[in-house]
Formats: sequence, C-alpha cells, structure tokens
Amino acid sequence: MGRYNRAVVLDQIQLADGISRVEIAQLTGLTPQTVSGIVRRLLDEGIVREDGASRVASGGKPRTTLRLNADAGSAVGLHFDPVQLTCAIVDLTGRPLVVKKRPTPTDTDPSDVVAAMAELVGEVLAEDVVPRSRVLGLGLATPGPIDQELGTIVAPPQLSHWDRVPLRRMLSEATRLPVTLDNDATAAAIGERWSGAGKGVANFAYFFFGTGVGGGLVLNHQVYRGGSLNAGEFGHSSVLSDGPQCYCGNRGCLEGLVNPPAIVAEVHRRLAAQPEDSSVLSRLFAEDPASVDHATIRLAAAAGDSVAAAVTDEAAERVASVAVSIANFIDVDLIVLGGHGIQHLESRYVDIVASALATRPLARHIRTVQVKSSPLGTDGAVVGSAALVLHATYSPQLSALLAH
Amino acid sequence: MGRYNRAVVLDQIQLADGISRVEIAQLTGLTPQTVSGIVRRLLDEGIVREDGASRVASGGKPRTTLRLNADAGSAVGLHFDPVQLTCAIVDLTGRPLVVKKRPTPTDTDPSDVVAAMAELVGEVLAEDVVPRSRVLGLGLATPGPIDQELGTIVAPPQLSHWDRVPLRRMLSEATRLPVTLDNDATAAAIGERWSGAGKGVANFAYFFFGTGVGGGLVLNHQVYRGGSLNAGEFGHSSVLSDGPQCYCGNRGCLEGLVNPPAIVAEVHRRLAAQPEDSSVLSRLFAEDPASVDHATIRLAAAAGDSVAAAVTDEAAERVASVAVSIANFIDVDLIVLGGHGIQHLESRYVDIVASALATRPLARHIRTVQVKSSPLGTDGAVVGSAALVLHATYSPQLSALLAH
Repeated sequence: MGRYNRAVVLDQIQLADGISRVEIAQLTGLTPQTVSGIVRRLLDEGIVREDGASRVASGGKPRTTLRLNADAGSAVGLHFDPVQLTCAIVDLTGRPLVVKKRPTPTDTDPSDVVAAMAELVGEVLAEDVVPRSRVLGLGLATPGPIDQELGTIVAPPQLSHWDRVPLRRMLSEATRLPVTLDNDATAAAIGERWSGAGKGVANFAYFFFGTGVGGGLVLNHQVYRGGSLNAGEFGHSSVLSDGPQCYCGNRGCLEGLVNPPAIVAEVHRRLAAQPEDSSVLSRLFAEDPASVDHATIRLAAAAGDSVAAAVTDEAAERVASVAVSIANFIDVDLIVLGGHGIQHLESRYVDIVASALATRPLARHIRTVQVKSSPLGTDGAVVGSAALVLHATYSPQLSALLAH
Repeated sequence: MGRYNRAVVLDQIQLADGISRVEIAQLTGLTPQTVSGIVRRLLDEGIVREDGASRVASGGKPRTTLRLNADAGSAVGLHFDPVQLTCAIVDLTGRPLVVKKRPTPTDTDPSDVVAAMAELVGEVLAEDVVPRSRVLGLGLATPGPIDQELGTIVAPPQLSHWDRVPLRRMLSEATRLPVTLDNDATAAAIGERWSGAGKGVANFAYFFFGTGVGGGLVLNHQVYRGGSLNAGEFGHSSVLSDGPQCYCGNRGCLEGLVNPPAIVAEVHRRLAAQPEDSSVLSRLFAEDPASVDHATIRLAAAAGDSVAAAVTDEAAERVASVAVSIANFIDVDLIVLGGHGIQHLESRYVDIVASALATRPLARHIRTVQVKSSPLGTDGAVVGSAALVLHATYSPQLSALLAH
C-alpha cells in the first residue's frame, strides 16, 4: 500500500505544473498526514523539490509548491522504426536532453541492427549530459506485435527475418543496460500521457502514423495494454468493405488505405490520369515521378496543392471513421493524432476528425470527444520509450498494489 | 484500504467454485493474516459460509472451503426493453429466483411506463421468495445513452418522448427502493462477469443483441464504462462504407444491417424476388408475409432453412468484422455473444465469429481471442441489473480504494 500511495502522490506531482501538499490530499483522497510523510521521503531522495515561491491560497496560509526534480533520474529511449532509429536521453519530466537518429540497416541480419542500435545508444551516452549513474535503463519502442514475456517481436509485418528474435536480451547484452520493451504506439501513448496532449486525461486513444498506423490506449488514467499486450491496433479496422486484401487477413484496413505507400500511389494515379496545371505536384511528376514522395506530398498538401490536399482529406475521412468507432466502443475523452506520417498535416487531420466526432458518436449529446495533435510530434515514440523505464517508478499501477 | 481488500477477497470467493483461505492469499497477494481477518468478518456477517467438506491439498493439511452464502442478500433486477419489461429477484450468487415479464406500454407517457415497472416489481416481491429486509435495492437496465449522474436516459433512439426523463428518481419514488441505473448492455456484461461466460476472465467484450446492438466491456477484471459512461456501443461501427444512413449520424452501421427489422426486410426482399420451394419460409411468406417475423426467421435459420440461414450468416459475418476490430483495438481475451436477437442462432454466430477471430486479428499468432455465447441467454440483462445493486458490495473498485 505504501508503494501504491507513493506512486499516486508522485503521479500527481508529475501531472501538475506545481502542486501543494493540500492539493495532493484533495485530489487523491489520501490524508494530509500520509501525503506529508510520502512527500518528506521524496524530498529526502531528491526525486521531488520544493519550489522557492510559496503561493497564498484564497484566504488560507501559504502553500509550498512541489515539483519533480528533473535531474533525479533519466532514461535512454530508443525508437526502432523499420526506416530510422531514434535515440534520446530523457529526464524525469519527459524532456529529451539529446536526440540522435540514423537509418535502420536494411536487408541484414537482426544482430547487425542490434549492433547499430547499441552504437547509437553509445553515441547518445557519450554526450555526457547526465551522470551515467543516473541512467536508470533503456526503453525500446518497436513495431508490434510483441511478446512481452519473451521480449521478442512476433511476425512483424514490415520486418522480414524478424520472427521471434530475442531483441530485449540481445540489446541488453550489447548495451549493458536493463531493457524494457514495448509496442512503438503504446510507447508513444505513454509519452503523450507523460508530457504531451494526454497529460492528466483519464481516457484517451493515441493514433500513431508511422510506417503503418498503430495506436495506444490510456484508460482510467492507466496505460491499457490488453490481454496479449497488443491493444491499440487501430490501423486494422476494415473501413472499405470491398477494399484491398491486407496482410493481416482483413480487407480494406485503414492502414492499407492511408499509409505512406498508399497515399503516394493514389496521388501518382491521379496525376497520371489527369495532369492539373494548378498542381505543383503535377509539374514535378511530369519531370520525375519518384520526386513525388510522401514527404513532398505532405508539404504540398499543407501548402494547399489541390491533388495532395484532396487525397489527404480522403485519408483523414477514413481515419475519422475509425475515430468514431473508437469513441463509440471505448468512450474516450480525447483522441491524439501523432507520428511522422502526418507531419505538417496535423491541423488538417484534426479538423476532419473533430468534425466527425462532433456529429457521429452516439454519446455526443452527453459530451464531445476532443481531438488534438501530438505536441511531441515525431519524438513521441522516443520520449515514450524512455518513459517505459521511468513509468513503473512513479505511475500508479494496480499490479503494484496487488503485489503487496 | 480495508474496504478494498474486503472487496478483493469477496470477489475471489464469488468467482471461485469453492476456495480456501490459502488459495485466496495466493491469488490476491494479501498476507494469510489479512485474508483470515477479512474472512472471519464475512463469516460473522453471514455473507460467506464454510462448506462442510474439507479438501486435503497435496501433501498439506486440510483446507476449509469458503463459498458465498446465496441467501445473505438479494436484489431486484429490472430490464427495460422498449418491447418488454423483465423483472427478477436475484441472489448473491447471481441466480434468478423469480422472473416475470410484461409488455412495455407503448405510445404513452413515461410516467405510465414507470407505473407499469413498479407494478411488475410489486408482483415479483409479492412472491415472497426472500425476506423483504434482505432486498438491498433495485437495479435498472435501460437502453442508452444514459446520464449516470442525473439518472436519466438521454435521447434514446428507440423511445420517443423519453429525452432526459428522471427515471431513477421516478422509479425510486414508485417502488420505495434505492435504484441503480445502467446501460442495458453494460448490465448484461456485468451479469456475464458475475455468473456467466465472463466469470474470471480479465478482459472481455460482450455483444448484446436486443432491439438494437449494444455491448459492454470488462477490462483488467473491472467493468469499463468510459469517460461519459457509454462505452461499448459496438452497433455503431460503419461496416458498409456506402451503407444506409444510420440515425446516429454514421453510414452503414452494424446495428442498421443486423437488427431484427433489417433481417426481416432482407428475408422478405429475397422471398419476394425469388420464391424457393426448398424454403419453408417461402410458403409461409406466400400465405402471409407478416407471419415471417424475426422469431420465425431465427427458428427457420436454426432448422437450416436456406434463405433464413443465408441472411443470418451474412449478418454474422458483419458482426465478425466488428469483433475483429474489437480484438485489434482492445485486445480482449474473450468475446461473448448474447441477447434475444440471436436466440436459437447462438452457435451459428459463434462459429462464424470464431473463424474470423482465428484468422484476422493482428495478434492471433500470440493467442486466439475466444468467443462464447452467453449461458444466461435472454436473462443476461435482468441478472446484470440486479448485479448493479450487489456489485458495489463485493467487486474490487479502484474508486472505493481511492475514496479512502
């Protein structure tokens, strides 16, 4: 119980932008005595600090503000995307102190990829922004599905030769750090809960637009992982009944219709069928079709190019349809959209999804589900992967309670 | 904390078919001393009883088996369906002792419906199967969406003139019993968790086929209600992109394609277009189209009638598509199918949904999501509505913990 209450108090301090002992007691239902005792220990351990400024509550006595001590601990986050590796050192408040990236080695043995990961981790640590003794571990965000107990990726759709590779053990041996493994989208959702759009929100769904479309769920203030630890596969809802066969076994999956290759193919198809003078892309395409890639299309759509914008808006409508299902099924308070797949197009996606959420979920008469783009942007997964390490330290988890 | 541990212990006793103190300690992580203390008080209060038989554990000393004392308390459950009212007295183990039904008054003022409800409750209580002093309250399962705080139904799609009726207060005044209100499908899911297919399952989704298609969720062993307490609207997922406009604002919703009027209309359409000698329904339809109603179609499909079976199987395929999305989004361990809308067709639905769950969810390589039909059948909602009253008494709820 002591450990659980400690986690509850720490969570309140982390979520608030400065909070007093009295406020913690009010929010948690713990007695002021219990809160004081826990805070005293957290201060002694250096995890929490007292803010110099004391605020005077209306009519009451001055209250000392408590904050997390950002320097008390840090973790290395590593985001393993099939295209790019991103590594960061993140402090206790969720702020990335160093971020480094490199291309993921392709068409090679998993052990070469692990070696590249370890090298990148070494480069980040060599920056010496935090004392090595304060680095609590390495969090790894990988494409799913994963088997948490074994620490392996299971039959990852976009990584051939990666079936049941013991990634956690290999990376731990290569870096000599304890490794915590999670689904990339779940990690990004944890990042949002920690320091992004989901901070303090009881129930939210996070859409992660990367090489594919994944997602994560926070329910009742807790990360919800599901029975096999693979919840949040929002990309595999059939949104087009007669749509193309998906590798997952379904037809017309969201992911297959809105992932980068699908967007590029659709834009190319339209440009080839009917050149439009008004479209900058049309001219680029005529010169060199390969130059009209996903990044170019995103920038063009953001600038209002007619073809790119139309294809983007149709993709956003499909995302909106799944967002409405999520609202109806899971009744979340907020949907967060993030990931590099919608970079520069965040507000376009947010507008279209918001409009659907305002008009289509069954419970909209009771309250409208909000939608926001991720303030962490493309760093969501790497911040979240570091949070994997720090999360168990300060987040209230029923399992921690039940283990006592 | 005491109250929380008590709820955890009581939950284990309720879920098990006989359990010892040692087993409770092992399952909950509580110390044997804590378990013994709690069990002693539960025995004193008469909520739990010791089973005469003692089992000898392998190599250990005899262990006394504990069970819920079914007679220690009971509740009245009332299921408010737009077509029929069902009322039951249910004991502490989830067994209905008396069940009575009557048609729901239609085209009338809500106060007339409440009067009919109160009359039915009076009839059930007049059977005197339990002492009046042991009736802890009345649980009401109603069509959603509902506003829990106000105890009202909000804009119910199939009940005109019912917007924001203060149903809880009206019914409590009419019956002089404390009333707990919940969504009918959530109530049925609670019934499944209590004494049905969901007993002991950590994560499950319940599909409720009634006048419409609703659902409920149990996640991490707890009923999950969502941010506005309206989670589980599985009927409002768009399964046919160009499908008919649904009253909810979506297009091609599951509910609009598989609810009784849709099934009846599709069977009529096929019978009118092409009479089939092999179909019993074809002859019935030729004599009197109105005789081919939903109940007749269900019985015909169960008996293998070609037209009825084909339409049923197509409906089950649409349900399967939503079940796959639920597996991908929420990663449940089990999907339970229940309600009078699939009466006699349970195994047909289970087979088709099971086949989809074995081949389409992304995490199927890790484990297959199970599917079962509800053993409570059409009584799921009424048993669950009684459980609404007894639930708070013995189910571990984080809120109970956090309130201390």
